[in-house]
Amino acid sequence: MFGKIRNSFQLVFIIMIASGLFASVNAQSLEEIMKTRGLSQTDMLAAAKTYTPSGKLDEYVVFSSGGQSGQVIVYGVPSMRILKYISVFTPEPWQGYGYGDDESMDIIYKQGSIRGKEITWGDTHHPALSETAAEYDGQYCFINDKANPRVAVIDLKTFSTTQIVANPIMKNEHGAAFVTPNTEYIIEASQIPAPFTNDYVPLTEFNEKYRGAMTMWKFSRKKGKILEENSFSVELPPYCQDLSDSGKNMSEGWVFTNSFNSERYIGGFGPGNTKFRDRLPHEAGMSSKDTDYLHMIHLDTAIKLFEQGKYKKINGHPVISMETMIANNALFLIPEPKSPHGVMINPSGQYLTVSGKLDTHVSVYDFKKMMKLINAKEYEGRDPYNVPILSMTKSLHGQVELGLGPLHTQYDSEKGIAYTSLYVDSAIARWDYLKLKLIEKIPIHYNVGHLVAAEGDTATPDGKYLIALNKLAIDRFTQVGPLHPQNHQLIDISAGHPMQLLYDMPLPLGEPHYAVMIKADKLKPLIRYKQKWFKNRVKPGRERIVREGNKVTVHSTLIRSHYSPEIIEVNKGDEVVWHLTNLERAQDETHGFSIYLYNINGSLEPGETSTFRFTADQEGVFPFYCTEFCSALHLEMMGYLLVKP
Amino acid sequence: MFGKIRNSFQLVFIIMIASGLFASVNAQSLEEIMKTRGLSQTDMLAAAKTYTPSGKLDEYVVFSSGGQSGQVIVYGVPSMRILKYISVFTPEPWQGYGYGDDESMDIIYKQGSIRGKEITWGDTHHPALSETAAEYDGQYCFINDKANPRVAVIDLKTFSTTQIVANPIMKNEHGAAFVTPNTEYIIEASQIPAPFTNDYVPLTEFNEKYRGAMTMWKFSRKKGKILEENSFSVELPPYCQDLSDSGKNMSEGWVFTNSFNSERYIGGFGPGNTKFRDRLPHEAGMSSKDTDYLHMIHLDTAIKLFEQGKYKKINGHPVISMETMIANNALFLIPEPKSPHGVMINPSGQYLTVSGKLDTHVSVYDFKKMMKLINAKEYEGRDPYNVPILSMTKSLHGQVELGLGPLHTQYDSEKGIAYTSLYVDSAIARWDYLKLKLIEKIPIHYNVGHLVAAEGDTATPDGKYLIALNKLAIDRFTQVGPLHPQNHQLIDISAGHPMQLLYDMPLPLGEPHYAVMIKADKLKPLIRYKQKWFKNRVKPGRERIVREGNKVTVHSTLIRSHYSPEIIEVNKGDEVVWHLTNLERAQDETHGFSIYLYNINGSLEPGETSTFRFTADQEGVFPFYCTEFCSALHLEMMGYLLVKP
Repeated sequence: MFGKIRNSFQLVFIIMIASGLFASVNAQSLEEIMKTRGLSQTDMLAAAKTYTPSGKLDEYVVFSSGGQSGQVIVYGVPSMRILKYISVFTPEPWQGYGYGDDESMDIIYKQGSIRGKEITWGDTHHPALSETAAEYDGQYCFINDKANPRVAVIDLKTFSTTQIVANPIMKNEHGAAFVTPNTEYIIEASQIPAPFTNDYVPLTEFNEKYRGAMTMWKFSRKKGKILEENSFSVELPPYCQDLSDSGKNMSEGWVFTNSFNSERYIGGFGPGNTKFRDRLPHEAGMSSKDTDYLHMIHLDTAIKLFEQGKYKKINGHPVISMETMIANNALFLIPEPKSPHGVMINPSGQYLTVSGKLDTHVSVYDFKKMMKLINAKEYEGRDPYNVPILSMTKSLHGQVELGLGPLHTQYDSEKGIAYTSLYVDSAIARWDYLKLKLIEKIPIHYNVGHLVAAEGDTATPDGKYLIALNKLAIDRFTQVGPLHPQNHQLIDISAGHPMQLLYDMPLPLGEPHYAVMIKADKLKPLIRYKQKWFKNRVKPGRERIVREGNKVTVHSTLIRSHYSPEIIEVNKGDEVVWHLTNLERAQDETHGFSIYLYNINGSLEPGETSTFRFTADQEGVFPFYCTEFCSALHLEMMGYLLVKP
Repeated sequence: MFGKIRNSFQLVFIIMIASGLFASVNAQSLEEIMKTRGLSQTDMLAAAKTYTPSGKLDEYVVFSSGGQSGQVIVYGVPSMRILKYISVFTPEPWQGYGYGDDESMDIIYKQGSIRGKEITWGDTHHPALSETAAEYDGQYCFINDKANPRVAVIDLKTFSTTQIVANPIMKNEHGAAFVTPNTEYIIEASQIPAPFTNDYVPLTEFNEKYRGAMTMWKFSRKKGKILEENSFSVELPPYCQDLSDSGKNMSEGWVFTNSFNSERYIGGFGPGNTKFRDRLPHEAGMSSKDTDYLHMIHLDTAIKLFEQGKYKKINGHPVISMETMIANNALFLIPEPKSPHGVMINPSGQYLTVSGKLDTHVSVYDFKKMMKLINAKEYEGRDPYNVPILSMTKSLHGQVELGLGPLHTQYDSEKGIAYTSLYVDSAIARWDYLKLKLIEKIPIHYNVGHLVAAEGDTATPDGKYLIALNKLAIDRFTQVGPLHPQNHQLIDISAGHPMQLLYDMPLPLGEPHYAVMIKADKLKPLIRYKQKWFKNRVKPGRERIVREGNKVTVHSTLIRSHYSPEIIEVNKGDEVVWHLTNLERAQDETHGFSIYLYNINGSLEPGETSTFRFTADQEGVFPFYCTEFCSALHLEMMGYLLVKP
């Protein structure tokens, strides 16, 4: 019965039994609860490491992409409680984002439009936190849209999206958003090649006219905005560029991206393809070679070239040609195991890990060796676009066999220690990238894509926690139909003992791809807005309705629990502009604003002013009310908009 | 140091210390973890009651409204893990809901439209589960939209929305969705009174022309649909009807709703109101009387009246007048403490609890006494609309003082035991509604609205778990900007010991109002679709592109990890119809479908076929790809739509 005594917990049991104490426990004893719920001692250790009592706060906060939900998901570690879905590319009514107020309508429907088309979703992939000296500073989060190439800025004072920029030359992207060590630039790399222009170019001209690119978005920390006029792109070969990373410390000034389909295989499978009938599908044709290319781009040189005007404008956007980049020693390729997913720079900036998903090894490149080859102009050859190729063998620090489907690497606080996700193995490997040695593996459930460690891609990772971003949940949770949640598994990676799986967290909305984890105390969010920040603010006592011709301007205030004014009469056809100021100062006292039939919902947080505009195009009676349960009399917080014929 | 020994856990500590074992514990000992994380023994008891190890499933599943997010939120108990956000009134791209496929576009943009206006959000309030003999049967979930009166059907085989019906006469509602004990009808009661017609009616005619109503939506379990042609409404006075409930067992055949603003106070506060300037705001004027009215509606009689054609059609919809209802002894009022929020029928159907939010008492009505008065035609008087009023005193079983702001009541498995939320007190009261006695209170954080107990509004509640749906989180979680998550607190209500607070769960999106909790094993969701269920299914080997004039039909299949066909060329101006069948049979193997610039994203679950339609209105190169990380080669699952000029 007692077997080998593994830890103090088991000992306690034995002592209790020996002491004859079991009989005396009451209905709420820990042992009985554990028995009833089928919990082992290992489970209780895990429970103790994650359980966060009412009112206690988390040590870390994760920002995860929402994938095709178009959002960013914020959750706490170790509690694995989801704290907020930040709306970015997709309208969301609870946050009043894209449901009538001037500010968010401008972001989604003006800034977010492409070629005159409104896009009301995004495929968010890679969130990046703003950095100062290669450390997270907690000020901004950036996120990309793979489906319709765009980058968004999220202000971490308000946890809301404040800007979207549309990429002027790409038709698909993936390697974004990644920041330089001081957030001067946000990097966006294309994925599926396409012509930079918007016209039809047949696939027979793929090699000549389809292109990859990397856009360097200039960020102004002072304005909290991307400055489109100071941003530019670099032309790249029509390989499928993949994930990117900025150099740090030793490698600062360089940007790296890897790629797949250096075969330039296009025009695959099936009857739809009249020109290429019965060829292999893309997935096979694109992975027929053994290697693809790691791209090295010297950002500092690219910036100089941009400043010197050495670019062509395409769709009004400056693009530096490959030719110019090559001539200025600013673009290089190095072979890497085929179909990799990510190049991850270690804290010192010297080592770059790359995992070919179809290889069992992780490759560790040495930036010093790469620079030595570059400085000596020692090239192995050139690709079809004349880009110099460095020797893989001479660039490598070495390779380590970790398992099937290695994908993404994060770094530990301990020198040389890294963690790599193994998609096919469904496991995480802990290994030493200096000594090139596998230490241990832990199984996960199932098919891990990316992973994230505490501050794991900064210059000083924290260790402690690792999260596996699993792509399949299968049987892990109560079934909720054919579409399952994703599963993020929290793993204890603190030093001195083997990795331990602590917690499964389902993601109930969206399909996260990538996440970043920041120390919670670096975030300094606002509790309330200052009323004076808003030009349309309405002061208490100054509520009014002003008519000028057929334009009616309503100046309203909200406070627990009434609108002022509560009755508004207009005429059919009137243009209504409605300013509302939430006068509350109390924390968490948000008021809502919705009007029947007008597809409007505002979320007015303490101190905030929003403006709504609509044409009163139907006569009738239109109740409006507060959609937030704001007080015991919240149901009474309502009024009527009356539209006379 | 040892103080009073409270439980076995503390004893264990003492024994350990006494045994000198503390020194021998390793780095992972439970005690050290507890110390590091500041956890008490009480915390560990709570942790043990909620911690659900990897792969273990929950005992209960909660369906919660998402409030103004327009969704239904599904989570497990006791783990308090959120499993899914079901899209209902708001488009959501991850689920491919409202992003191009025929089925969901029809639900949102056709069925969901009102008076020709597209409404792309909802204010979901009260989910109801389908019942058989007043027990949850796990087949369907229904949910209302308060902002734009609508009711939706969610099929619990697929956990997806399958129907939206728009209320033809209401302009605002609240008391929905509630089902009859065998789900023959789904009840929807209005809230803010308005004319049934869509024309302008001035507020001076409020008493005469504004009305409340209750709609009885006929549900066909066989078709899984609301049958609009078999549904009807009952006219009610222009009080603000509030929450509703169907009678069960003894009271089956009756429907109850309470109300506020029986003052009919309208036209309040502020400068906007030219006719009623300087009156009290609505929140004050609507709560000036001491009582409002509990409404009793005899559904069985109403159904007969409907079948006999004793209605008028308004906006094409049958409405039974108050006059007809009164004449047929099918509509009564009983005074209730003012501004209540909900009337909750106990498991036997005999007792109804009502809480006036501005009173400190909960009132327990006795259905037997009410029926005695009705049968004796013993009325206390009539309201201005001639509705008979029953005596409150003679209808009451009694009242109990529970605390400030009593709001919502749920029932326990133990006879006579109920739980009532106290909004102002921020507490939950456990009390006996038969003996009319308060048992105990537990504080919550903060301002609880509704609450939900395990199967707590069925004929046989389970006890065990109670969840407080708190409206404010304030300082409970790491701050994420001025807009906080809501907080659902799990409370242990199992018999034999005081209530214990177990867990705080933030709601990261939406503002839940009401929830229902079902035994998890009653749910029988689908793992995959059968391909043959879809009329547009594409069989493997039968992929093709068919052109008829300027209409191009693409018949595509998807399987790990390619589309077939992968290249599609059309001409500018072509109408494209694109059928896609996911050939996967593996659990959780969803594929996505997005095209650059077309605002399309599909979620094709195993076996599912979806159809997308668009006009190729711009020439150019449009990559499409799978938005789900479906295999190690998912990035290669892509193709090109080429549009020739």
